[in-house]
Parts: sequence; structure tokens; C-alpha cells
Amino acid sequence: MIPRYARPEMTQVWEPATKFRIWYEIEAHACDAMAELGVIPKANAEAVWKARDVEFDVARIDEIEAVTKHDVIAFLTHLAEHIGADDARFVHQGMTSSDVLDTTFNLQLVRAADILLADMDKLLAALKKRAYEHKDTVRIGRSHGIHAEPTTMGLTFARFYAEMDRNKNRLEKARWEIATGAISGAVGTFANIDPFVEEHVCAQLGLRPEPISTQVIPRDRHAMFFATLGVIASSIENVATEIRHMQRTEVLEAEEFFSAGQKGSSAMPHKRNPVLTENLTGLARLVRMAVVPAMENVALWHERDISHSSVERGIGPDATITLDFALNRLAGVIEKLVVYPDNMLANMNKFRGLVMSQRVLLALTQAGVSREDAYRLVQRNAMKVWEQGKDFKTELLADPEVTAALTPAEIEEKFDLGYHTKHVDTIFRRVFGEG
Amino acid sequence: MIPRYARPEMTQVWEPATKFRIWYEIEAHACDAMAELGVIPKANAEAVWKARDVEFDVARIDEIEAVTKHDVIAFLTHLAEHIGADDARFVHQGMTSSDVLDTTFNLQLVRAADILLADMDKLLAALKKRAYEHKDTVRIGRSHGIHAEPTTMGLTFARFYAEMDRNKNRLEKARWEIATGAISGAVGTFANIDPFVEEHVCAQLGLRPEPISTQVIPRDRHAMFFATLGVIASSIENVATEIRHMQRTEVLEAEEFFSAGQKGSSAMPHKRNPVLTENLTGLARLVRMAVVPAMENVALWHERDISHSSVERGIGPDATITLDFALNRLAGVIEKLVVYPDNMLANMNKFRGLVMSQRVLLALTQAGVSREDAYRLVQRNAMKVWEQGKDFKTELLADPEVTAALTPAEIEEKFDLGYHTKHVDTIFRRVFGEG
Amino acid sequence: MIPRYARPEMTQVWEPATKFRIWYEIEAHACDAMAELGVIPKANAEAVWKARDVEFDVARIDEIEAVTKHDVIAFLTHLAEHIGADDARFVHQGMTSSDVLDTTFNLQLVRAADILLADMDKLLAALKKRAYEHKDTVRIGRSHGIHAEPTTMGLTFARFYAEMDRNKNRLEKARWEIATGAISGAVGTFANIDPFVEEHVCAQLGLRPEPISTQVIPRDRHAMFFATLGVIASSIENVATEIRHMQRTEVLEAEEFFSAGQKGSSAMPHKRNPVLTENLTGLARLVRMAVVPAMENVALWHERDISHSSVERGIGPDATITLDFALNRLAGVIEKLVVYPDNMLANMNKFRGLVMSQRVLLALTQAGVSREDAYRLVQRNAMKVWEQGKDFKTELLADPEVTAALTPAEIEEKFDLGYHTKHVDTIFRRVFGEG
Amino acid sequence: MIPRYARPEMTQVWEPATKFRIWYEIEAHACDAMAELGVIPKANAEAVWKARDVEFDVARIDEIEAVTKHDVIAFLTHLAEHIGADDARFVHQGMTSSDVLDTTFNLQLVRAADILLADMDKLLAALKKRAYEHKDTVRIGRSHGIHAEPTTMGLTFARFYAEMDRNKNRLEKARWEIATGAISGAVGTFANIDPFVEEHVCAQLGLRPEPISTQVIPRDRHAMFFATLGVIASSIENVATEIRHMQRTEVLEAEEFFSAGQKGSSAMPHKRNPVLTENLTGLARLVRMAVVPAMENVALWHERDISHSSVERGIGPDATITLDFALNRLAGVIEKLVVYPDNMLANMNKFRGLVMSQRVLLALTQAGVSREDAYRLVQRNAMKVWEQGKDFKTELLADPEVTAALTPAEIEEKFDLGYHTKHVDTIFRRVFGEG
Repeated sequence: MIPRYARPEMTQVWEPATKFRIWYEIEAHACDAMAELGVIPKANAEAVWKARDVEFDVARIDEIEAVTKHDVIAFLTHLAEHIGADDARFVHQGMTSSDVLDTTFNLQLVRAADILLADMDKLLAALKKRAYEHKDTVRIGRSHGIHAEPTTMGLTFARFYAEMDRNKNRLEKARWEIATGAISGAVGTFANIDPFVEEHVCAQLGLRPEPISTQVIPRDRHAMFFATLGVIASSIENVATEIRHMQRTEVLEAEEFFSAGQKGSSAMPHKRNPVLTENLTGLARLVRMAVVPAMENVALWHERDISHSSVERGIGPDATITLDFALNRLAGVIEKLVVYPDNMLANMNKFRGLVMSQRVLLALTQAGVSREDAYRLVQRNAMKVWEQGKDFKTELLADPEVTAALTPAEIEEKFDLGYHTKHVDTIFRRVFGEG
Repeated sequence: MIPRYARPEMTQVWEPATKFRIWYEIEAHACDAMAELGVIPKANAEAVWKARDVEFDVARIDEIEAVTKHDVIAFLTHLAEHIGADDARFVHQGMTSSDVLDTTFNLQLVRAADILLADMDKLLAALKKRAYEHKDTVRIGRSHGIHAEPTTMGLTFARFYAEMDRNKNRLEKARWEIATGAISGAVGTFANIDPFVEEHVCAQLGLRPEPISTQVIPRDRHAMFFATLGVIASSIENVATEIRHMQRTEVLEAEEFFSAGQKGSSAMPHKRNPVLTENLTGLARLVRMAVVPAMENVALWHERDISHSSVERGIGPDATITLDFALNRLAGVIEKLVVYPDNMLANMNKFRGLVMSQRVLLALTQAGVSREDAYRLVQRNAMKVWEQGKDFKTELLADPEVTAALTPAEIEEKFDLGYHTKHVDTIFRRVFGEG
Repeated sequence: MIPRYARPEMTQVWEPATKFRIWYEIEAHACDAMAELGVIPKANAEAVWKARDVEFDVARIDEIEAVTKHDVIAFLTHLAEHIGADDARFVHQGMTSSDVLDTTFNLQLVRAADILLADMDKLLAALKKRAYEHKDTVRIGRSHGIHAEPTTMGLTFARFYAEMDRNKNRLEKARWEIATGAISGAVGTFANIDPFVEEHVCAQLGLRPEPISTQVIPRDRHAMFFATLGVIASSIENVATEIRHMQRTEVLEAEEFFSAGQKGSSAMPHKRNPVLTENLTGLARLVRMAVVPAMENVALWHERDISHSSVERGIGPDATITLDFALNRLAGVIEKLVVYPDNMLANMNKFRGLVMSQRVLLALTQAGVSREDAYRLVQRNAMKVWEQGKDFKTELLADPEVTAALTPAEIEEKFDLGYHTKHVDTIFRRVFGEG
Repeated sequence: MIPRYARPEMTQVWEPATKFRIWYEIEAHACDAMAELGVIPKANAEAVWKARDVEFDVARIDEIEAVTKHDVIAFLTHLAEHIGADDARFVHQGMTSSDVLDTTFNLQLVRAADILLADMDKLLAALKKRAYEHKDTVRIGRSHGIHAEPTTMGLTFARFYAEMDRNKNRLEKARWEIATGAISGAVGTFANIDPFVEEHVCAQLGLRPEPISTQVIPRDRHAMFFATLGVIASSIENVATEIRHMQRTEVLEAEEFFSAGQKGSSAMPHKRNPVLTENLTGLARLVRMAVVPAMENVALWHERDISHSSVERGIGPDATITLDFALNRLAGVIEKLVVYPDNMLANMNKFRGLVMSQRVLLALTQAGVSREDAYRLVQRNAMKVWEQGKDFKTELLADPEVTAALTPAEIEEKFDLGYHTKHVDTIFRRVFGEG
């Protein structure tokens, strides 16, 4: 976790206090279930809830762990300090540490997913707003970084919306993947604890019982979860890359927002750097690097080995905290992005009408000019634009061979931007389900 | 693609002939749609179907491409050789190469996914069969590679079944992800082609129209697809690792099947190597390596650059062919796995009852012995087993302090394996939805 | 291996015929050594060389392998068909298949490295030539994609030269890493074969004996080799990215060479796409994806398992063939890159002198103007450039507060490009060891 | 950084205080050089050293940064608070933030490498000590997890020594890679600062001047550095995997040391888990995950973009701290590893002499028995061992067909372990350069 790329809301999910709180709830709910089964006295189960409002003392638990060398035992010892050794005596009965640890880890991931889903909504709202705002703002579409045909800035925002909407859907699936808990004992056979306890605890925590666990919850779930985060990060990189390109000095079709107070370089007004989207590009790499180790974690030895644990201590907090920060940063960038429609037009006209040459070519052939002749006609006028900076339409209108085939109005019509934007509404309807 | 790790069924999806066939279908369906719109004459659209039963000549297309330097144009030229230049003249009108290429790639991935789903079914059937066969075959559960508590071989198969069933579900989602097509023109604006053409072609091919494309179908879809293959590969590694462990000389609880003809080493009967599952471990790495480049492919420049293309020429065939081979190999390994229940029992009894020591400890405390005393009693008898090879139960029965707390019958009961297997039915019901 | 991204020279290293040839040489040299030790008759060793000029029949060997299910035995059987069963009888004595396979794989990697080193030389020569050619071609340096201060195109080529020169050095080290052979028997103890045989064979093949092998040569060597290829690929991506940026429509400071015959779009002269460097970006990802599996291959079980083998069947050929192709493609791109010095100047002057604003600021403060005043002066003139398209120098010369502090000559001097290029010679000397 | 997997020595390299200290030294040395060039007054340069013994106040610098939004400026402001604004006025003149940041990052990596090299020495010493200690401790060599031929535990330690020795060599190279500094200005042209300053500062810090930088030091260096850490991590996994296998309940040839105080399970003496080496397996994954993002960092846009920065804030500390911890943990594991030679012998004899069957087979053929007959003889006796648990040598000695070919002494000799260990000295000489 890199503090400057962390938001408190997500960081808090991974704090020791949160973890101990979840441990407590698991143990307390488990006692309830055991009492209901008649395995332990109801009074003892109820007594555990005496600590309901306690804030566990992390330093004290660490102190005990320094002696016991076992985190769960340290916590249970501390819990007994609150509810009394006698009342605490049935807590954790028949359970294994992993029952608590794995269920907790999954619950933390679920909470992280919920925050990420809310981030997504914020980002989607920003993208949608900007999409409608610039639905008809024409700019040149580019393939290979080279001008191709006109499109609109709204379509750019809309495609990022569609991509992030897919990502939200994926994240919902990923959340579902890890929303399970397990209280099944040393090798998952429920030898010392009734499956009902697992069912009860999971229901209370909003989790599903893991249908079959060993000592641990199977790690293919987590591999899928982190892989999904990796895909989302890659989409963030996609959006960030577009903005970085738009802000290039020579392109300047948009800029990250600079607050009045914020100094780029007051002496060099052009020197406003897309540092937020560059940063997002790097953060995407950081999130993505969790994917492979999460997959390497799947193949554990027999009923479990503990190789996955250190990996998850790293990537669990790091990937979710970084992604949460990145989604929020990106939402802010989109909300406040300064768009320059005039520069978009100027760029499109850099080669004075040349981007329309293919349409003219098509029109000539449709008007009966042979393919070869049409090429020749378009090319000789295009070359004047390319080499001498002439205006394409003007040249065409002045070329008798061209005007023999197409009327001035027809030529004029080929330069109508509406030709390229006529299906924008259709596409918006597809993306947003409305006009 | 490594020939020895390839099955013809999947390889065929990626053959040039298959690709050209799909190209043809896309073009022909597109002509139908354009004819329906009145954009091209119905007769021309119908004429395209004259080539319905043609097997396109890959060598001839390559020959043309050597001249035109453009694969789609080469194909169209060859197509015209079949249906006549005149009838062919409206083919591909208003379309971009990427419309054909991307829709084709997705259709190939869909077909690949269908084969993989069938592979999954085969694997699931094998796992289920073996799970029921060994539902009650007791073996020791191990954490950290160290004996823990008893479980059954059926539970091992069942957990792999559950994991692969999750993978099947993921693969269905991944198939859905890439089951889209796009015929939207140079920058995705449908400037030169009506969206109806896309809708018609996609419907004919069993694809959904991509709601918003640029020149290309967005690559977050493919990232998710390959990430899913990576998770499945990791699960294969998980199963393979278990079998490799079981086949170790010192463990020998199971072996990959050796046909009578197959020579391990006739002189060294113990020398049967788990080469299939070792191979699967390596194949898993090969599949997994597609994940990161697929994610790096997401961030294309503006409306598209072509950096993703070479990556996909590699990972498209390689990852699907390798995974298909691996799933089939694994299904075969599971079907024919030779299981040694006797060795399982022998291993479990390596420390003559010691795996039951925790149950005895618990029983003593429940019988009123103090925790400290119970430990002392268990430990002194356990040490005789550990250091002198005595039998744990026998020692306990001979220890007056133990028998003061527990009757022989009670001690006997602690060594009942049924205690550990009593919930196997419950777990099977969870996994298989039946007893 | 993707045929279109493969050069015959490298492909040939990985062909079955090459492999069998190396197997043959290993066996023949091993016989020589055994004869020298007196372990086998000299005549038999000599007889093996009868096949010196034989081209082994790959199809025939495959045919035999279909029966024996063992590649090395199939080869030996075929070899016996050439030199006679009687003379062949001591071939391979005391050796293990891995002795042959691993030594061969390393020799193939060494040969691959030699080809890659020659590729490097070609690329370095091209970079150096272009660096000197454009040593003084001024262009704007950019940080964050935003204009910063002037630099020269020669420096750009020179830094790529320096980077590739480092890569050559790394590749030499990587070649050294895998230039070992092992003939040490089933678990590396030389139980059945004298270490002298290993020494002799390695010496003949230009390899070093592996100091300690098990059944296999340790895979940390290969991990380092493929990691190095990954770094080189990343540098290729670095160069490719620069060129793609330079070729953007709005920048157009350079273009990949288009042959006269080659059609970009004749009607759209601006539509020349940097497809080679985009392709190189993708190829870099393909090479890089070999790195992680090569690292996962290091941890083999005990004296060996065979999980690494399938991985290497993939990445061995694929990574080297792709990198070879990429280096050659890049060398060609650099050699023929069309550079546009005029556009470089035009881009630099897009904000009419504004890139010099920091120098003017510094000059004003050095002339005794307070920091605050200097800022104010620079800023008010800069803003006229930024907002009204004025020329910065002209404005400064017309600003009495500025001219009160700086003489016209001093102002003029601040716009001298020589200020920025004065250390180019120094840097060239550092990079090329000469002026 | 995960606190429980961090050692103070390495953590300290990455602390803010360390970073500011290096910034200070760079600035102070740069002033010296500028004074020597006559660019700034000598008195000012000397004055900077007044802060030589100051411990910079990290909180105060953070406070200033909260206002200035720029870390280097915040530091310089704080420095001025110590040495006085007037004396501070020439500090940083002509430099760019990156000059300080990149040189500092490399110096931190160099220091990290030095700590890692010392770790390596510790690990190598432990491996060497254990190798000699168990040079002649015979154990079975295993391929595919299956018994093959005898080897010694000393050879196992020796091969890990050789592997780690290669890694040390690689790390020395990697250290060299990043031991450069750059003070070359905004785009690396030295426009505002003389190259002599860079030379002087680098010399003082033990770095080499970067021959050609842009605004940043080229990131291929760092890619190579982190790739090397990834290889080392993979070797750690290799050693860890061996130990985990040795500690398996059924194998038990070695165990991680358990201190007297440390509780495994007192009631289950067999339940000693190889948690340290399992943890090392996970840590290896954590280190390795830095490799790909470091490679993705190489391709920066033009003279620099800042996408690499966030990545390095993560992987710089994380990969070095984790690797340092892992190397130390591994050294401890090796030093204290409890080896069980008796179990090694017992395991080797699990199939009562069968591992010698190949030697007997060879001996029979060498004694003139036909290959077919020899097979038959060995096999029929081997089968009695395999199926009925007989002793192989006893059976051979009782088989008249065998004794017709081999004398009892000859048979006896085939079971001599010395046959397999006769070259151990040779191998040790190769590895350790001594007997």
C-alpha cells in the first residue's frame, strides 16, 4: 500500500481493527449457532455479545501474540479479557483458525468490492454526463494515430462508459465469486463442528457457505477476483492513454483540469502535464501485477499449504486500495476534463478536407466514373492539399473533370459532417438504453 | 501451437480454411442485409451464395496476397474468381477489413469456447464418477504436507469437481463476453453502412452486435476471456499437483494409468512417473502466459492501433489449443487414475493412531480432566508412538490415568473413522445436488 | 511460432533436423571420449562418425517413435540403421536422455543468442548511422507529451543506441548463462559415466560443463536467459513507441518508409500508418510473456520433474524467433525511417518561442529583476503568445520593462538554439566513444 | 511492504529520512561542483554543508509540501530553514527535480543490492557448511517424485549453493546496471548545467554518470534489475520446494528447526509444518510480480512520462524488502535444518534394493547374458520385491540363473553405495573450488 495512492474508506477495510471486528462477529455468531444446536449453553453464547460494542485493542492483541505466536489465539485471549474467561470458554470450539481467517478475508474482499462498485457508479455517471455533453462535438477519429474519419467526442466518452459498464458487471460477478465463508474444520470434513454453524455464520455475514472447502476456501475464487481487477485496471489504462494523447502539445483536444491555485508553469502556459492520467497508467500496472501471483496461489498442496497467505497479505490490500484510488482519480479526471472543441475542428482540418477524400472517391465511382479515373481525380487534388496546403473542397470545385461528374452541391454534400454523425443517436441508445 | 499438445478439433478452428469460410459467411450475410435495405441489388446478394459449397483455395489466396499485400483484398479477389467479378462487385461495400477480421476472431473464440465447454463436461463427468466411486475411501487429509485428520478420496474428487464446475460457469461467462460482432466501419460511426447490416450478420452467426465499437471490438472483452482461461489453467495445475503428490514413491496413493503395452521400466516396477500431470503443470504455465499480454492489449491508441494483432495471432490459437489439450488429458488421467485405498490406510496409520490424538485430548477435557493434565496424558502416550513406534490406542488403553477418565469403549470410539466421514453425504449433496 | 513473424535463419535452429544433428554430435563425441577412457572400443567410436554427412530422416524417426514412444530411443534406432546395429551398440552407454536433451536445448539457445547478437549489431549500426546523420537536427524535447526544451533527433537515436548496446551486453551475459552442457546421468552423480565424457563433449560443442547438474541443467539459467529477452523486447517497445508518436498526424516528425509500390492510401496521402512499429509493440508483448513461465520453471521437484519441458517447447522457439524477427524489423525501420526536420522546427515553434520562456525568466532574475517581477513580465508576454498567437521574442522586444533589464541582443541570445545543443558532442563521445 | 516480512536494515533504505539525506548530499555535492566551475560562489557551496549533521524533519517537509504540492521544492524550502535563505539561493540551480529523484532512486537500489549481496553471502555460507556436513549422507535421488538412483544430501546443498552463487553473480551485475546517476536537466541536454556537475556528484556517491539520459535515467536498467530479483526469488522457491518435500510426513528426511519453546502441537508430535519454506514460496511470488511492471515501465513517451513513478514507489521498496527478508529467512532455515539420515536410508530401502535393478541389469548383459534374458531375470526378482516385499539382493543371490552369470561377490558389489558417490569429490571441487 502506497499512502499517497490510498483512500481512507478502502484502507479501513484492511486495518487490524476491522479484521478483529470480523473475527469477533464470526465467533459470536458461531456460538449462537452452537447454542441453538445445544452444543454449548445458550448463556455462554449470549455472553459473547457483551463485547458487542468493544473496540478491540490492537496493541494489546499484538502484545499477546508476541507471546503465543498465534494471531487467532491472541485475539481469543484478548476477547476473554473482555467477557471473562469463564464465559469465553466455548468460543471457537471445534473451529480451526482458517475458518476464521478465510471467512474474514472473503468478507474483506466483498466489502472492497462494494466500495469499488460505488467507485464504478461515480465513474459511469461522469462518463455518461460528458458523453451527452459532447455527443455532437465532432473530432477526427484516428486509426494507428493517423487521421481516419470524423467521429464525436461523445462517442469516445460513450465507449469508455460501455467498457466500464462491462467492468462493473464483471466486478459484480467477481464479488459473487468470493462471497463465501467456510467453517468446516481442519480438513473441511466438519468432523468437529456441524455444518449448521457455517450456514448460520455465513447467513449473518451476507456470505454463502462454501459448498466444499478443505482447510481453506479454494483459491480459484480469488484468482478470478484478482484477474477481474486486472481487467478493470487495463480499462483504466485505456481511458488514461486516450486523455494523455489528447493533451499532447500538438493535439491539445483536452486537458486535465488545472485549478486556479495549481501552478503548472505560470511562465510556460503550454506546460500543463497530464500527470493524473500518466499516474493512472502506472497504477494500472500495479493492480495488474496481482493477477499472476493470485493464479499461482491456486495450486496448494493437498488440503492446504500456507504459501498463498503471504501473497494475499500483499495483494489483498494493495490491489484493492490502488484500484479504488485509481477509479476515483479517473472519475475526477473525467468530470473536470477540459475539452477543446475548437482544437478538435482545427486538427480535423489540418489537411484541409483531406479526410473526406474517400467519400469523394466513392461518390465519383457511384456517379459512373471508372475506379481508375476516380482515383486519378481524387489523387491529383489531394496532392495539392498535401504538398501545397490547398483546400480540398476548393480544388475539387475548380476541377472540371470532377465537376463534370458531380454538381457543386453534391461536392459540398460530401463535406457534410452530418454524414458521419447520423448514427450517433443509434449508438447512444445502444449504450445508454435511451436517446 | 505445439503439435504434440494439440487436438485436431481445436486446431481446425484456427486453420486458414476456417477463417476464410467465416469471412465468406460474413460477406454473404452482409450482402443479404444490404439487399434487404435496397442498398445493393438482390440478385447480387444472391449470387454471392453461389460459392456456398466452395472450399476456398488457401494457396491461391496466399498467392494473391503476395501481390496485394492485403489479406482481405486477396480473399475478395479470390471470391470474385468463384462468383464472377460482376456479381462480386458489391461484396464488402461500406465495410472495413476490421469488420471482417474482428467478427471472425470473436466467432473463432466462441467456437473455441464451445469445444472447451464440452471438454469441461467430459472432465466433470470423470470427476463425478470417481468421486462417487471413492466417496468412502478414507485417506489422511494433509495440511502443509503433514498429516492432519482423515478425509476421503471422494471428497478430493468432489472438490475438484466443484472447482471445475465453477470454471465451467466462468467459461460460459467468458464465451458470452466475446460473442459479439461489429460491422461499423472505419471509426465505428456506421458512416458508410447501416447498423442493420451488423445486426443481421451477427444474428446469422449467433453473435450479439457490439453496442459501440471503434474500428475494432474493444479488447477488454478479450482480456477477460484470456484471464478466464488462465484461471482454468491454474485449476488444472491444482489437480495435477495433487496427483503428482499422490504418486510420489513414499506416498503412492494413486498412479496415472499405465497401459499393459506401455513400458515404464520393466526392471524397475516402482518407476512409473506421473508424466501426464507434470506435463499438465507445464501446460498450465503456457496457457497462463496469455493473460498479461491480453491485458496489455486493452489500451489501444484512439480508435485503434494494430499492436494487439500480432499478440492475438499468437495467443488466440495457442492458449485455446493448449487448454483444450490439457482438459482432455486431465479428463483421461482422472478417468483412468489407479487409486490405492490400501496404501491410503497404510499412510494414515504411519504414526499408528497419532492423527487421533486431538480427539482424545478433547475427550479427556470433556470428561473433566484439566486441560494441563489432558495434555500431559496425551503427550506421554503420543511420544511412545513417535519415538518407539508403539500403537497409540493400545498405549492409551494401558494407561491407568487415561482409563480412569475414559472407558475402553470411549477410547475405542475416538478411533472410529466414521466420526470424520459423517458429513460426506452432506457435502456431496452440496456439490452434486444429490446424495 | 507465427510464420509471418519468423525468419528462416532462426527457425532453422529449432527444426527437428537441427535437433537430431546435435543429438548425433553429442553421441559421437561421447563415444570418442569413452573410447579414450578405454570404456568402449575405439573402432566403435570411430564407426559412429560414418554418419557424419547423413541427413537424418525426420519422418523415419517419427515413425519409430510412434512405436517406441521415446524420442531418444527412436533416434538411436534410426542411427543404428545408418551405422549398423553392431557398431551402434555402445552409443549412449551410461547416458540418460536428459543428458542429450538438455545439452541440445542449451546449444540451440546459444545459437539463437548468436543470431540475436548479430541482429543487435545490425540494429546498432543503423542507430549509430542515423544518430550522426541527425546529430544537429533540432527538435523539441517533450516530457509528459508536452513541449519542454529543445534537443536533437541525433540524441534520440543515440539514446536508443546506448540502450540497445546495454542490451547487447546483457545478451552476451545471457548467452554465457546457458552455454553449458551436462552428461552426468540419471541424478547427476556420474555413477555410470565418467565426468571426462561431459568435459570432452562440451569442449567439442563450445559449451562449459555444468558444474553440478541433477538429471537436468538447473533452470535458473534459463529463467535469466528469457528474462533478458524480455528486457530487450521492452526496449524494442520503447523505440517503437517513439516512432509511433513521431508519425502521428499532428506531429509528423518522422515516418516509416513507404516504398513507391506500397499503397498506403493513394487517395489519402496522410494515411500512412506506422504499422511496423505498432506490430513491434505487439511482438514485444509476445516475447515478454515468456519471462514468467521461465521463472516458474525453476522450482522443479527433487532431482527433476518434467513440468518445464512443455513450457520450453513453446517459449524456446517462440521467444527467440519472435525477437529475432522484431530486431530485424526494427533495424529496417531505423535504417529507412523518413525524418522531417522541417516539421520538427514547425512543431517546436507551435507556440512561437514559448519554450524559451524559462530561459528568459532566468535571465531576468540574473539581470537583477526580482523573482516576482520577472514572473510577471514573462507571464504577460507568454499569455499574448498563448492566447493571441503572437511571437514571444517580438513581444519581449516590445516590452519596455523587459528591455529595461535586457538588451535586444541579450533577448535575441536567449532564443539561440545553440544553447541547447552545446553538449551534444560530449554526449556523443560518451555514447559512441568518439565525437 | 508487509511489516512482518521486513527487516529494519532494508526498510531503512526506503524511509523518507534516508531519501532526504540523499537529496541533501546530491544538492551539496552539486554546489561544490558548481563552485569549482565558478558558476556559484564558493562560500555558498560551503554554506550548504552547514546542514551536514542535520536530521531533516520529515513532518515539516510534508507540511511544506502540502502547500507547495511539490516534494523537491518542499525539501529545498526546509533546507533553507537550516542554512538560511541567502546561502541557500544557489542550491539546485540549473537542475531538474528528476536529476535528484532518479539519482536518489538508483542510489537506494544500489544500497538495497549491497544488503542483498550480504544476505547472499550468509545464505551461501550456510549452504556450504551444510553441504560439507552431509557430503556423504546418502539419500535417494528422485526424478518425477519417483525414486531413481542414490545421491547425497551434500550434493543437494551443493547444487543450491551453485545456484545461489550464480544468483550472487547476477545480482552484482544488476547492481552495476543501476549504479548510475544523472544531472542533465529538463531533457538531458545539459543546457543549464555543465556535465562536470553530474560527474562530480556521481563520483562522490559511488555512481557512474549515465552516458545519455533524457529527463530520466533509462528504465531498461531497472527492468533488468527487477528481472534479476525475480530470478533470485525463483531460486528461493526452488530450495523451499525441496525442503517442503523433505518434510512431508511420508518422507521426513528433514525438518525446519523447531525451538524447544516453539509449540508445534505437543499432542501431535508429527505435526511440525514447514511454514517457513511455504512462506518463502509465497514471498517468491511477491518478488516475482515486480518483473512485468518493471518491463512495462521501459517504454516511456518521448523524453519521459511519469507513468513509471507510481510503479516504482511500489516495487522499489516492496521487492527489495521482501527479497531481503526471504534470503535471511532461507539462510536461517538452511543453517538450522534438521536432517534425518536414518530416514533417508529407510526411504531408499522402501523397495528393498530395487533402486539397484538397473545396475544389475547392466552387469548381467556385460557378463554375456542377452538383453532379453537379463531383463527377464531382473524383472522376475524385482516383481517379488514389488509385490511380496522380498529383499532384492537376497532374491538375486537365490536365483540360480542369476548366480550362473554373476558371483555372489559381484552381486554384492552392485549394491555398493560407493558406486554412486564416487564422483562427489569431483563435483564438490567444481562447485567450491576445493575438495
